[in-house]
Amino acid sequence: MTRKLHLNAFLMGVGHHEAAWRHPRSEPGKIADVRHYQELAKIAERGALDSVFLADGLALRGKVRHNALGGLEPLTLLTALATVTERIGLIATVSTTYNEPFHVARKFASLDHISGGRAGWNIVTSASEAEAANFGIERPAHAARYARAAEFLDVVTKLWDSWEDDAILADRAAGTYADTDKIHPIDHTGEHFSVKGPLNTSRTPQGRPLLVQAGSSEDGKEFAARHAEAVFTAQQTLQDGQEFYADLKRRLAAYGRRHDELLVLPGISPIIGSTEEEARALERELDELIIPAYGLAQLSYLTGIELTEEHLDGPLPDVPIETEGAQSRRKLVVELARRERLTVRQLLSRLAGGRGHRVVTGTPEQIADQLQEWFFNGAADGFNIMPPLLPSGLEVFVDHVVPELRARGLFRHEYDTRTLRAHYGLPRPPSRYAARREPVAV
Amino acid sequence: MTRKLHLNAFLMGVGHHEAAWRHPRSEPGKIADVRHYQELAKIAERGALDSVFLADGLALRGKVRHNALGGLEPLTLLTALATVTERIGLIATVSTTYNEPFHVARKFASLDHISGGRAGWNIVTSASEAEAANFGIERPAHAARYARAAEFLDVVTKLWDSWEDDAILADRAAGTYADTDKIHPIDHTGEHFSVKGPLNTSRTPQGRPLLVQAGSSEDGKEFAARHAEAVFTAQQTLQDGQEFYADLKRRLAAYGRRHDELLVLPGISPIIGSTEEEARALERELDELIIPAYGLAQLSYLTGIELTEEHLDGPLPDVPIETEGAQSRRKLVVELARRERLTVRQLLSRLAGGRGHRVVTGTPEQIADQLQEWFFNGAADGFNIMPPLLPSGLEVFVDHVVPELRARGLFRHEYDTRTLRAHYGLPRPPSRYAARREPVAV
Repeated sequence: MTRKLHLNAFLMGVGHHEAAWRHPRSEPGKIADVRHYQELAKIAERGALDSVFLADGLALRGKVRHNALGGLEPLTLLTALATVTERIGLIATVSTTYNEPFHVARKFASLDHISGGRAGWNIVTSASEAEAANFGIERPAHAARYARAAEFLDVVTKLWDSWEDDAILADRAAGTYADTDKIHPIDHTGEHFSVKGPLNTSRTPQGRPLLVQAGSSEDGKEFAARHAEAVFTAQQTLQDGQEFYADLKRRLAAYGRRHDELLVLPGISPIIGSTEEEARALERELDELIIPAYGLAQLSYLTGIELTEEHLDGPLPDVPIETEGAQSRRKLVVELARRERLTVRQLLSRLAGGRGHRVVTGTPEQIADQLQEWFFNGAADGFNIMPPLLPSGLEVFVDHVVPELRARGLFRHEYDTRTLRAHYGLPRPPSRYAARREPVAV
Repeated sequence: MTRKLHLNAFLMGVGHHEAAWRHPRSEPGKIADVRHYQELAKIAERGALDSVFLADGLALRGKVRHNALGGLEPLTLLTALATVTERIGLIATVSTTYNEPFHVARKFASLDHISGGRAGWNIVTSASEAEAANFGIERPAHAARYARAAEFLDVVTKLWDSWEDDAILADRAAGTYADTDKIHPIDHTGEHFSVKGPLNTSRTPQGRPLLVQAGSSEDGKEFAARHAEAVFTAQQTLQDGQEFYADLKRRLAAYGRRHDELLVLPGISPIIGSTEEEARALERELDELIIPAYGLAQLSYLTGIELTEEHLDGPLPDVPIETEGAQSRRKLVVELARRERLTVRQLLSRLAGGRGHRVVTGTPEQIADQLQEWFFNGAADGFNIMPPLLPSGLEVFVDHVVPELRARGLFRHEYDTRTLRAHYGLPRPPSRYAARREPVAV
């Protein structure tokens, strides 16, 4: 069997382009409308995509004046998507910095039951000060957030393992519902958490929901190499993509993991037209709807430098890379500006499409060429697809790029697997508490 | 218009009777099966019931050996019920002791959006030590839990109010999505919480999801009188029901609230047969499936006294009423045993049906008589219906008791309202941050 690529549809309001809501092809009134997201999930499933994914942040941060925000909490929304789909994976972002592991373990276990084994957790540590202010604490330092995340994950996976697969007997005659020898307290005591367990939700179809991670800092990469099964990443050039891919895969061995136990999925925002001219025209339309004040505020936040209209036609001022916030994204943006000698205005335009993710404009064949190039040259196991407009950008991807990838033998024609783990080619982990501990195929 | 009663279907696994899972008419394999709960919600909606309700606890507590537990987290599950229903209210239990107000506000706001204004929150403070052990703290004292709950609720309602109703402009031409003068930081600083806000989910159809409460201790009643819009309660006799009802309604004035701004909904487990003999036979069948060891463990937990098989045929030993746990339920159980001079075995049988809630056995007419008696005599504004077996006990209630209540003019024939607040006859609260603050009908 030839190696197939994996495709995840990153769902973001009415589109990933920051001006999507102003474009006549979007409906900004649908930001909090569950039917909009259900339609997106069905379109992605029609294309046999591996999964849909919802990002998240825990603060509004004043961006709402010029962007369509204020939508639905991802894990709540994913349940609503689970009920109208059959096969597609469902990945939600949840922070380890402002949550309790018992709740997170239980909610993802519930989603995994409800979806029949399609749940995935994108683990984030919440970089912004605005988020900390909604939870009454000072934002913890970068390293401290990752240390907490590691212990958090340890507790969550223990809780997921706390019921062995065959714990439920449901023996009516004997009156024994469960073999309590196969339901284990976890008795976790660590620096950040003390959790007795067991979980009060039974072992799920996937055993453990899929673990996804997206931080690309040094701490982030080490965390991913140790724990994650899929990584979302922003990479601007093939060379950067290759270096990141090789770096991450190289780190796996230290944790006794194989090369194929973690998938690297770079983000890409495809601006698609039936001709290159049509695609360029759509790109221009979106570009013209950009509100500089909005982009300046985002870039000021990201760089830690107060940028105003006066900076627009000059180069990006010097920016320190070290930060307690979104460190790797800051580095990417500064390098992009330097490498291509962009003015601030040009940089804003480059960031408007994908917030630092790669934007590719062209025909379905040209988009497929780009995906194939990265996939064949050691930069990707698949992609996190970020349509500029939703639903139209996802529809055109599913209806025109996906068939092109299939014609090239790069993507499945239909689902031949049932769980998210199985779509991604990953095993079902055994419970650490079970006597028999080999992974089993699902 | 004559006063109508309100009916809430309390959904609990495969039935409220503790031996339900052993009865041939239940399917214990469906404890974590979303379709089971979706079917229950649809049955309740077929009867035009006001709402469905899911209880919750945050620990397994070793009950699973003899009972079908380990199901789904309520708020996650309710979203799945929202997507297959149109009108019925959806109430989930969430603890204020082991959560953060920002998350709780956002999740209920999301459910309210997804359901089109049908979300309700049953506020609990989590009485057990087993729950505390899953969150790494000592169980806070009763009064401390209620103090936290009051501040928690204050923060949550501020967050729900933080977007005024008309904050979203979605003005594409001007590039203004929201009028940020109408989106307010809440800047809450209190003893337990410091939360800046605003919420990152927009104002919801109900403005604020419905607030429900179920504690019947002194602290619980005072909390309910101040904050709750519906109260679930366990009352064994008409006189107790009347006293509780009058007491709670009397307390409202101190908070400037009217008599009809809080509904009192006692729990009742109806064991229904087409003849009284048939109903009694079902009651006996369930009774014979009781496992004394299970009931003894629950009763030991509730009373704080270690009860064994040796106690079964004697009276309940002396039990202190003051406790940091489930105080009002302990009082109810001790009084029941004393009043009716029950042996421990008889008490277990009385508790098996509804854990202290009233069990009524009879024909649909007899059940309706009981509901009518309490409704007409100042003990109830409606009822929390707890079928012994699910789905069969809910089906027979909807198909036989509900028509009887309709024939008597006591219950709606169909929904003439769209939101949970409107079903309950409650107003839609204005945002406290809006210039115009009158409640509006929904």
